[in-house]
Amino acid sequence: MAPARSPLAPAAVPAVPPIGGARFATGESGIRYKGRDDVLLALFDAGTTVAGVFTKSSTAAAPVAWCRKALAGGQARAFIVNAGNANAFTGKAGMGAVDATVGAAARALGCPRNRVFVASTGVIGQRLKAERIAAMIPGLAGAARTEAWDRAAAAIMTTDTFPKLATASATIDGVPVTINGTAKGSGMIAPDMATMIAFVATDARLPADVLQACLARATERSFNRTTVDSDTSTNDTLLAFATGAAGHASVTRAADRRLAGFRAALEAVCLDLALQVVRDGEGAQKLIEIRVAGARSAAAARRVAFGVANSPLVKTAIAGADANWGRVVMAVGKADITLDQRRIGVRIGGHVVATRGGPPKDYDETPVTAHMKGRSILIAIELGQGRAATTVWTCDLTHGYIDINADYRS
Amino acid sequence: MAPARSPLAPAAVPAVPPIGGARFATGESGIRYKGRDDVLLALFDAGTTVAGVFTKSSTAAAPVAWCRKALAGGQARAFIVNAGNANAFTGKAGMGAVDATVGAAARALGCPRNRVFVASTGVIGQRLKAERIAAMIPGLAGAARTEAWDRAAAAIMTTDTFPKLATASATIDGVPVTINGTAKGSGMIAPDMATMIAFVATDARLPADVLQACLARATERSFNRTTVDSDTSTNDTLLAFATGAAGHASVTRAADRRLAGFRAALEAVCLDLALQVVRDGEGAQKLIEIRVAGARSAAAARRVAFGVANSPLVKTAIAGADANWGRVVMAVGKADITLDQRRIGVRIGGHVVATRGGPPKDYDETPVTAHMKGRSILIAIELGQGRAATTVWTCDLTHGYIDINADYRS
Repeated sequence: MAPARSPLAPAAVPAVPPIGGARFATGESGIRYKGRDDVLLALFDAGTTVAGVFTKSSTAAAPVAWCRKALAGGQARAFIVNAGNANAFTGKAGMGAVDATVGAAARALGCPRNRVFVASTGVIGQRLKAERIAAMIPGLAGAARTEAWDRAAAAIMTTDTFPKLATASATIDGVPVTINGTAKGSGMIAPDMATMIAFVATDARLPADVLQACLARATERSFNRTTVDSDTSTNDTLLAFATGAAGHASVTRAADRRLAGFRAALEAVCLDLALQVVRDGEGAQKLIEIRVAGARSAAAARRVAFGVANSPLVKTAIAGADANWGRVVMAVGKADITLDQRRIGVRIGGHVVATRGGPPKDYDETPVTAHMKGRSILIAIELGQGRAATTVWTCDLTHGYIDINADYRS
Repeated sequence: MAPARSPLAPAAVPAVPPIGGARFATGESGIRYKGRDDVLLALFDAGTTVAGVFTKSSTAAAPVAWCRKALAGGQARAFIVNAGNANAFTGKAGMGAVDATVGAAARALGCPRNRVFVASTGVIGQRLKAERIAAMIPGLAGAARTEAWDRAAAAIMTTDTFPKLATASATIDGVPVTINGTAKGSGMIAPDMATMIAFVATDARLPADVLQACLARATERSFNRTTVDSDTSTNDTLLAFATGAAGHASVTRAADRRLAGFRAALEAVCLDLALQVVRDGEGAQKLIEIRVAGARSAAAARRVAFGVANSPLVKTAIAGADANWGRVVMAVGKADITLDQRRIGVRIGGHVVATRGGPPKDYDETPVTAHMKGRSILIAIELGQGRAATTVWTCDLTHGYIDINADYRS
């Protein structure tokens, strides 16, 4: 039985406008799922540039290896995603499956192979029947249209309970540009990489290296600040495509002031998508924001924040609406950085639960418990050592996570 | 409602012989639990030496800070444990509670304060009503007897579902010596430290520095090779007491050959206790042994092994008896060490599930699934890079863990 739609899902899937030069078609391969589309073909007009960030896993999947290589060309005509089989740890057969898919698309479009990108998501270690995907490509290419973002978002889902879309706009040199994106989660989500499979497309006209710099920065400030379960995927892929259809003047440096609005919009889309992934974390009932301040370095702040965000004891306490802030202190303590306990303070939902190494004298748990019963939990930690700070997001750890993952394949 | 006794519990609590010079009494403080003993007083004859290893948490509890200091004296007359309140992150009040307890014991025994050791376990961040414990000490001191190991093991439990005892014997210079130990878990259990609260007592006669060296080595090879939930406790304490009652000749170096049998017996007791803690991990239904071989260094082997042992996706798959070995590969990949996928092999229950970067050609899942349905799961990972190896133990992640931890305090 599919899990119910996450209670943290946005009220509605946002309507996103078309992006000039980007078209989509989806279809049903029958490889793992029945009765739903599980293959996405995205087509981009000639001249589209591409950037990407990928998992740092040392057992990265075959499609990730291909994308890293193809990215050197800087141009994209097609992107193919299949859901249900990760084509990871599949040895030579895995690269063969990539070759078959890429070859079919290159032939259908009459383009070089290195303009075709692929991503897979699903079970690891099973052979991907890529011949089924390859056979679908000519038909999908004929059916692609610009308005199909919603179908694209739905086709890439695995254990997701809702499709994820985001959009933002900006101007470059006075010309309006749009950025759309989609992503899928919702387990095997951990920091320090581009989380799972996501892509954005824009009608901005940007050289691949400029797009890459903008994307890397946006990733660091969005996907790489989230975690669901501390497990880094073999297949994490985030690609950005810039079709150039907006027709503004050329911009050749990422630091160009004219890109300030674009960079902010790209970051907004990535953060929106990253938070949607957390909101749809497997079994998630609460969205948790963890702010760490007063750290000696950004790395220390990050270490503490993720120590708390990945602590099963913190996450289960929040699942139970238990104002057990001692577990937050425990998770801070295990971050393996030198701390002075007497300077540590913790607030939950704005209420001081610990200050200078202990609970405040007049501590009243009532408002904290009330906050813990809500859907959005805010934990703020002051380390009292320096000026570095960060914010990360995660979800609670519930029976739903066990239900989904103790029997994912069957 | 208390969780049912772990299905991984030993068939019976082992009978342990008395240790000359070590006596025990337990009592009910009423601080957190009702209707059960929650305070242990252990008394040791004059001349008993002591060694200890503690949590590496930077938010370590007040009793840990006291024990570290008192350990410099090298001698012990008393050890007091309370269950239900960790006396952690309690600021000055926390050190005051330690002082009150230590002071009461020193007065009752007429000994220096630094021969009194204390440990607390339970909820973090709540003031410990140590006056209740202090008031019990004179009575307990009068009631202490050598045969009360079983009561001692029961009094220190929190979410444990069974008391943990172990015993082993050896000879030193031809004279028989005995080592007994006890431990409590069963959540907030993570590696790289002495896990939770445990103590061993022996009638061997050893200088404190020799005992310390033996204990540190045994810890590294036992407690520090286990994890339940990756959360390092603020209170982890392992103490060893050597009463000298066995009366063998003096041994002044840990490397002395005459201690070979003692060292092995101490390691056996520690490993027995550590595995009992894992077997009683919160919600545990399966004991998981993870062997990593072919690593470039011991640190790399350990990193990979704990990456797998702490992966919620691996642990939930095992809970569901799902032979989803791809998650093991994922967890190997996230260890942040350089690997060549084509050299990686994985066996489950002795059956090859992956070899040279993919599933074997004639892969038959049937025997693997049968193994996954058992209580003891064995995962062996070959990295194909070098000669370093390690073994670590953990348990599965089940609904029971969520049940216990989403509502621990109430």
